[in-house]
Amino acid sequence: MSVFADRLAETVRATGTALCVGLDPRWAMLPHSLRERHADHGLDGLADAYAEFCLRVLDLVTPVARVIKPQAAFFELAGPAGMRALSQVLDRARELGCVTILDAKRGDIASTATAYADAAFAGAPTPSGTIPVWNADALTVNPYLGEDAVAPFVQAARSDDRGVFVLVRTSNPGGGLFQNLICEGRPLYRHVGDAVARWNAETLGTCGFGAIGAVVGATHPRELVELRAALPDVWFLVPGYGAQGGTAADVRAAFRSDGLGAIVNSSRGITFPFHPDDPAWEGKIIVAAKLAAEEMRV
Amino acid sequence: MSVFADRLAETVRATGTALCVGLDPRWAMLPHSLRERHADHGLDGLADAYAEFCLRVLDLVTPVARVIKPQAAFFELAGPAGMRALSQVLDRARELGCVTILDAKRGDIASTATAYADAAFAGAPTPSGTIPVWNADALTVNPYLGEDAVAPFVQAARSDDRGVFVLVRTSNPGGGLFQNLICEGRPLYRHVGDAVARWNAETLGTCGFGAIGAVVGATHPRELVELRAALPDVWFLVPGYGAQGGTAADVRAAFRSDGLGAIVNSSRGITFPFHPDDPAWEGKIIVAAKLAAEEMRV
Repeated sequence: MSVFADRLAETVRATGTALCVGLDPRWAMLPHSLRERHADHGLDGLADAYAEFCLRVLDLVTPVARVIKPQAAFFELAGPAGMRALSQVLDRARELGCVTILDAKRGDIASTATAYADAAFAGAPTPSGTIPVWNADALTVNPYLGEDAVAPFVQAARSDDRGVFVLVRTSNPGGGLFQNLICEGRPLYRHVGDAVARWNAETLGTCGFGAIGAVVGATHPRELVELRAALPDVWFLVPGYGAQGGTAADVRAAFRSDGLGAIVNSSRGITFPFHPDDPAWEGKIIVAAKLAAEEMRV
Repeated sequence: MSVFADRLAETVRATGTALCVGLDPRWAMLPHSLRERHADHGLDGLADAYAEFCLRVLDLVTPVARVIKPQAAFFELAGPAGMRALSQVLDRARELGCVTILDAKRGDIASTATAYADAAFAGAPTPSGTIPVWNADALTVNPYLGEDAVAPFVQAARSDDRGVFVLVRTSNPGGGLFQNLICEGRPLYRHVGDAVARWNAETLGTCGFGAIGAVVGATHPRELVELRAALPDVWFLVPGYGAQGGTAADVRAAFRSDGLGAIVNSSRGITFPFHPDDPAWEGKIIVAAKLAAEEMRV
């Protein structure tokens, strides 16, 4: 496997787009025709419907975009069977040559963070050897627990050649409550950004970016400009584009002049551009993915 | 169901101890006799071993302590089957009359946080009605994403009569990197504490405490004193006692004069007080639980 940062750069260059497709399955938004087949089977039916839908979405979108971000929360809501669906989706995305980002926003004290990092990357140590669990290329991580809590993710990313995206400035309207507090002269998110730069510094690939990225919302274009200048070699994962209100112009500042440096996520805008009754839902996903990939052309 | 804060107070009073037993199963620390039965079955074997061990621990400890905190990370490391083991452990703890705290440190933007909150509490909406997933009494939550991200957990706790424990000052050595930054005159963790007080204010039970608690590490006795004074009606979940270095004297400040207001977690010290080769491991767990319950007598 190549260095994570370079693998991400190669995927962006090969497809010609910085689009990241978010997989956030929701029962109420699935096509009726698909729901009908799974409606009478409780949580297992929910999980099977999520797997079937997401695997189909992968077939439809990977011709134009191959950075894929499943959101763990929606799979967790379908219980243990939902986590099996998540595993199937990650496996299939990998088979299709995608870079996978597990959006789980994990974080805990070091010994526990190691378990989350092993689940995401190296796998579980068992008597029959290490067995992969999610086997994702990258994981989103919450920085609130600090230095030693983020370290296991950084170490795992380095030793297994994976990536980490640390929450810096999130896209939600109330994200500023703590992130914008002025601490010793600068907002908290800048302190987190500086830590990301430090963790990232020793992981640089030939593309000039490293393995420890930052989550910076498209809904904060001013902060995006400021953080791009402050963290020139950090990959940005930019949520909040599309359904959350961020525009293509808002995210332009996230990119280096050669078009690398950021991946821009769209979830609902690509995976649910149809009414559940619409029999032509697959075609609508293809069109939405093509349009979004074009808007994020690099 | 009674108000969460009162249910927790009743459990502490009924058992006479503020001890919270943490369930952090680790393969390498399990009794050899138990491991042997599951060694050849990959992740499913790991999950079955975790379920068998934790269910046995519940039988051994619930005579003296009935606040139980499974750590989601270790179950996640056994994959989807591990999440099924987590579900079994939570179900059994409930049958035994325990208050269950799912330690998952979840946090995301509002629409996603709602999925995590539904998984923890109300359950998944399906055509056959709402189906419980973890059905825990309380969940640990990370505050970094701010106001609207914590709101779905607070709302779910209120409408389903559950509890939330928000990370305020964590027990790990590097926790101060951001939590201790001085923001507008006070450390970040005090700002988070103030938000917890605000979220908690409208959830008070007859015991005088509310449903939105705070995680404050036993390894920071000075901060524990300060936060107890600042947040008089907030339940504290105090990790870091025992294996992490906090002592009974360190945590005394967390309690109100009548002995209520804090639950003190011990994980490894209670569940792994034996060498894996020791055939008398069950007796050692009973002794460790009794001693810890006694040290946390209220």
